[in-house]
Amino acid sequence: MRLDIVTCQPELLTSPFAVSIVKRAQEKGLAEIHVHDLRRFAINKHGQIDDYVFGGGAGMVLRVEPIAACFDELLAQRTYDAVIYMTPDGETLRQPLVNRLSLASNLLILCGHYKGVDERIRKAYITHEISVGDYVLSGGELGAAILVDAVVRLLPGVLGNEESALSDSFQDNLLAPPVYTRPAEWRGEKVPDILLSGNTPLVETWRHEQAVERTRQRRPDLLE
Amino acid sequence: MRLDIVTCQPELLTSPFAVSIVKRAQEKGLAEIHVHDLRRFAINKHGQIDDYVFGGGAGMVLRVEPIAACFDELLAQRTYDAVIYMTPDGETLRQPLVNRLSLASNLLILCGHYKGVDERIRKAYITHEISVGDYVLSGGELGAAILVDAVVRLLPGVLGNEESALSDSFQDNLLAPPVYTRPAEWRGEKVPDILLSGNTPLVETWRHEQAVERTRQRRPDLLE
Repeated sequence: MRLDIVTCQPELLTSPFAVSIVKRAQEKGLAEIHVHDLRRFAINKHGQIDDYVFGGGAGMVLRVEPIAACFDELLAQRTYDAVIYMTPDGETLRQPLVNRLSLASNLLILCGHYKGVDERIRKAYITHEISVGDYVLSGGELGAAILVDAVVRLLPGVLGNEESALSDSFQDNLLAPPVYTRPAEWRGEKVPDILLSGNTPLVETWRHEQAVERTRQRRPDLLE
Repeated sequence: MRLDIVTCQPELLTSPFAVSIVKRAQEKGLAEIHVHDLRRFAINKHGQIDDYVFGGGAGMVLRVEPIAACFDELLAQRTYDAVIYMTPDGETLRQPLVNRLSLASNLLILCGHYKGVDERIRKAYITHEISVGDYVLSGGELGAAILVDAVVRLLPGVLGNEESALSDSFQDNLLAPPVYTRPAEWRGEKVPDILLSGNTPLVETWRHEQAVERTRQRRPDLLE
């Protein structure tokens, strides 16, 4: 999978793509991540990419021309399965959408910043508007980092053990059950006996019950 | 505000805290961010901090001892308003929770990784379990980065113009209206006349109508 990310804050994305799973995916050649600095497409030699919001008020808006120039260059080189804009008023990201996007070959992701991007860019280019949650961030970069991490870890061969992704929260509409590791006793608190029993079918039943119970208590909406 | 973040992937958080708003908040002395490497509290000289999951199955679990040692050291130095664990089965982060957390003096944030942390840590120390959304990530680091960004930008004096945060999406349960900037015409697409009218009350009315309409179309749940 190829991921192109267009941003006015490329420095913000350096470390999230340089460690852990996302790093490994790139080293294995399973994901190719390109971060494009909008300032390379600035409208003047001062590096301008934004401007005051029409109608007045606080905050700056990313101008159309730098984004259009960057997009046109990329779109001339390949077809994208989705041109995504990270924005708080987009569709809320949930695991089924992550799963669908993980099947793509090429994704183009635009990060908003300041007050957002000029509306005309959204109409002209964007096929998917995605929000990572109902909160306000300084820009779309962390949202893009989340999308990349969530998608890339699903690519076949990225995780060491395929089962690991399938047993995560949300993949079966249940929260994950509690997990324990050594030591079996710590400050008087013991691991549930059943997990030490070696009886795999019983352990699996217990885990399922715990997952259902935890989901019922914390997120009954997932069970509806 | 002081934010302590406990993680087994401190490198992942380097760049998100070194640029933009979060950087400025630290430079102004309004936010102090400390990232603690769990491996400093490893249980042996091999740097071990995790172990196999009791009961069998894929994935590793963060052990209790390194986290407890790190927490005990921090908790001996100051009182925390909240000890937060970033986890997909936590309370979903939304702007009202961000607003509440922005009033804290000291926040302690634990990032999960692999299959998560030993359940006994959650029972012994954690006061708030928070999820940034219904998707699975490689770890809690990006969630922590999101929480820090969302909270820090609300601290008085961080944003250049206080109004900028108040007019964002979600602060009034409405999505933000569309925004435009120069040029007034681009590839035949014109900015709505009203935004060029100079009539501020009319502009404000238009924006409110657009915000309500956009929320109705995209996120009717916010209006309920």
